[in-house]
Amino acid sequence: MPRNAFYAQSGGVTAVINASAAGVIETARRHPDKIGKLLAGRNGIIGALTEDLIDTSQEPAEAIAALRHTPSGAFGSCRYKLKGFDKNMAEYQRLIEVFKAHDIGYFFYNGGGDSADTCLKVSQLGEKLGYPIQAIHVPKTVDNDLPITDTCPGFGSVAKYVAVSIREAGFDVASMAKTSTKVFILEVMGRHAGWIAAAGGLAAEKEGDSPHIILFPEIKFDEAAFLARVDHCVKRYGYCAVVASEGLHNAAGEFMSEAGTKDAFGHAQLGGLAPLLAGLVKDKLKYKYHWAVADYLQRAARHIAAKTDVDQAYAVGKAAVELAVAGKSGLMATIVRHADAPYAWSVGEAPLDQVANVEKKMPRDFITADGFHITEACRRYLSPLIQGEDYPPYRNGLPQYVELRNAPVVKKLAPFELGKV
Amino acid sequence: MPRNAFYAQSGGVTAVINASAAGVIETARRHPDKIGKLLAGRNGIIGALTEDLIDTSQEPAEAIAALRHTPSGAFGSCRYKLKGFDKNMAEYQRLIEVFKAHDIGYFFYNGGGDSADTCLKVSQLGEKLGYPIQAIHVPKTVDNDLPITDTCPGFGSVAKYVAVSIREAGFDVASMAKTSTKVFILEVMGRHAGWIAAAGGLAAEKEGDSPHIILFPEIKFDEAAFLARVDHCVKRYGYCAVVASEGLHNAAGEFMSEAGTKDAFGHAQLGGLAPLLAGLVKDKLKYKYHWAVADYLQRAARHIAAKTDVDQAYAVGKAAVELAVAGKSGLMATIVRHADAPYAWSVGEAPLDQVANVEKKMPRDFITADGFHITEACRRYLSPLIQGEDYPPYRNGLPQYVELRNAPVVKKLAPFELGKV
Repeated sequence: MPRNAFYAQSGGVTAVINASAAGVIETARRHPDKIGKLLAGRNGIIGALTEDLIDTSQEPAEAIAALRHTPSGAFGSCRYKLKGFDKNMAEYQRLIEVFKAHDIGYFFYNGGGDSADTCLKVSQLGEKLGYPIQAIHVPKTVDNDLPITDTCPGFGSVAKYVAVSIREAGFDVASMAKTSTKVFILEVMGRHAGWIAAAGGLAAEKEGDSPHIILFPEIKFDEAAFLARVDHCVKRYGYCAVVASEGLHNAAGEFMSEAGTKDAFGHAQLGGLAPLLAGLVKDKLKYKYHWAVADYLQRAARHIAAKTDVDQAYAVGKAAVELAVAGKSGLMATIVRHADAPYAWSVGEAPLDQVANVEKKMPRDFITADGFHITEACRRYLSPLIQGEDYPPYRNGLPQYVELRNAPVVKKLAPFELGKV
Repeated sequence: MPRNAFYAQSGGVTAVINASAAGVIETARRHPDKIGKLLAGRNGIIGALTEDLIDTSQEPAEAIAALRHTPSGAFGSCRYKLKGFDKNMAEYQRLIEVFKAHDIGYFFYNGGGDSADTCLKVSQLGEKLGYPIQAIHVPKTVDNDLPITDTCPGFGSVAKYVAVSIREAGFDVASMAKTSTKVFILEVMGRHAGWIAAAGGLAAEKEGDSPHIILFPEIKFDEAAFLARVDHCVKRYGYCAVVASEGLHNAAGEFMSEAGTKDAFGHAQLGGLAPLLAGLVKDKLKYKYHWAVADYLQRAARHIAAKTDVDQAYAVGKAAVELAVAGKSGLMATIVRHADAPYAWSVGEAPLDQVANVEKKMPRDFITADGFHITEACRRYLSPLIQGEDYPPYRNGLPQYVELRNAPVVKKLAPFELGKV
């Protein structure tokens, strides 16, 4: 007797998280013997808690297929972390109520490290609270900071965006430097791990190529060394292009720039590092500068997504369903690397208790000794992840992204007050 | 007896100015009876003044063809404006010296309004200083502010970048808005004219689409009206996406944000409007926000260039040479629109004295009555300009842009001290 499945998107969305959704939904539709309807949570896990469910069976096949080339979270995402069982029993009991009411026997959660932790707890509902459910995590995070998996879907496309952008901006500045801008600073995402900033380094294929300097969260910012390097690059190459991670720390271990607000997970919300660094360059070196902050543009840039990333995002969605119908639970679908060049990979699995709340930082040997660029080992790791183009369809000069109908499932339960949103 | 030609790039570079260069060079090579070598100025007109010339005949045909898909200025550009004859005779006499020494009879100048003025003055060297030369201007500016021509090559690709980016970011914010970011602000270029910001409006094809608000330099910023509109959008659509022109003015007519430095033409260098507006939203409306500043990324984004723009950039370069070999001078090659949909255009010509130092602003009827969006008339004008994709070739996941050899021409004259760089 088939049971229904629940799918939700969590945390910051990406250019390819909907490709994972397509992988989950299309694969679930191929297993009608095991899986009935696939119900999506509107705005992530909040949709489960508030019984705000979307009936994906009402979406035509073409709409689901179009998710593969549509950025963002088609069902809405959220930043909402379930606390431990001991601290938050009411929410787990509510989940079980909702799951029972809608006969949900499969739980697919598409997110990063915090979400892996939630998924792990849901997988334990059988043992702890007597409601057996198969919970499989679908990895997603532009930060690339999940352990075990070779990479996290969403990262490769940001990586490609950043590498392409700093190459293009580098060409621009190189041609202006004689009489105008000599220093360009691009601020990119990466709260604690420098993977995204590192990816910018792929654009530099020979000496003198942009970017000349990469600033990583893993390396404490040294103002004097930075300024000396900028000056050196301007004198040697005529200009200096910098990729700076938003998570750059000072010598005291504090974020160089904080917006002063925190997100729902209690993480500091960053931004505005690029103008800060540019001001430093102007004050101390007197060079004319420009700066850019890519912010959401980088993670939403489906127009320049990496084909490898799109394929992997779809594959982990598909694998999650296949693991569940094979009777497994408490796992994350992973990417396993078999070879660097040409890149060979397959889908694997990892126990969620080895994934949840573990943050994968850049290995020190991926960063050059001076702390300002990436090593050959890092290139070998990163380069495959940005391979291939996978352009969306265009109409009237604009990419055609799908908006689903998102038909609500009729509620069966009394309303539920969220503890904290 | 063929004479040599001079070509230079001026002002801010674009994603397609090199496509114009390809049009000039490839067409010049097809007229060996009239044009000998095509010499490019290294770093624009400064290359002419300092006799720093590049022999483009040493570049293989494939390298010149690759310019068509390479952003930035392959020979270097500059921000350097020649003053009037009365104020700056030494520089004009120097130009003639260099032109004579290298037998230059054709002058092709690829730039915006300031450059059109320089090109006009060069076209008058015969009449004023007895050195006949045929000077043709090749239009280029992301600002789209040159008169007469239907559009300026460089603009269509920025327009496409901005429209694509705000659509993608809008999808992102829409999926995060329930528990996280509700307001997103993208700052785009456009010092005095709102064409680039307006192009963002093309992404909004139906009510509720991103962007919800566009802030134009042509409309004085009204804080209360802006905040009320942001609040309205968040309440009605769940989120609010804003495209803001860097050139936004306050009620007193001052730039909302000034970096405090000026470029070589004396224009204020702007930047940092987005964080300013975001701070306003946070303080007054308490909404969670994100902001991006695209800066050079937008004008260098050859990876998402509009095919229409690339074709037009090449066409005006080609036409400039054809006008010159037909014996004309003192003209700018223009784009002439024959129909909106489907877009039909051809190349025309305009006298430079009607072009130089005239700035084309947005007509008021291209902006909605409330000042926050574009009208149907504006859409009819803008939409054709972003049509078509023209992807560069990729290798290892990165666009393959060409770097020319830029072999120097042997100098024949004594050095020349620039008046001011």
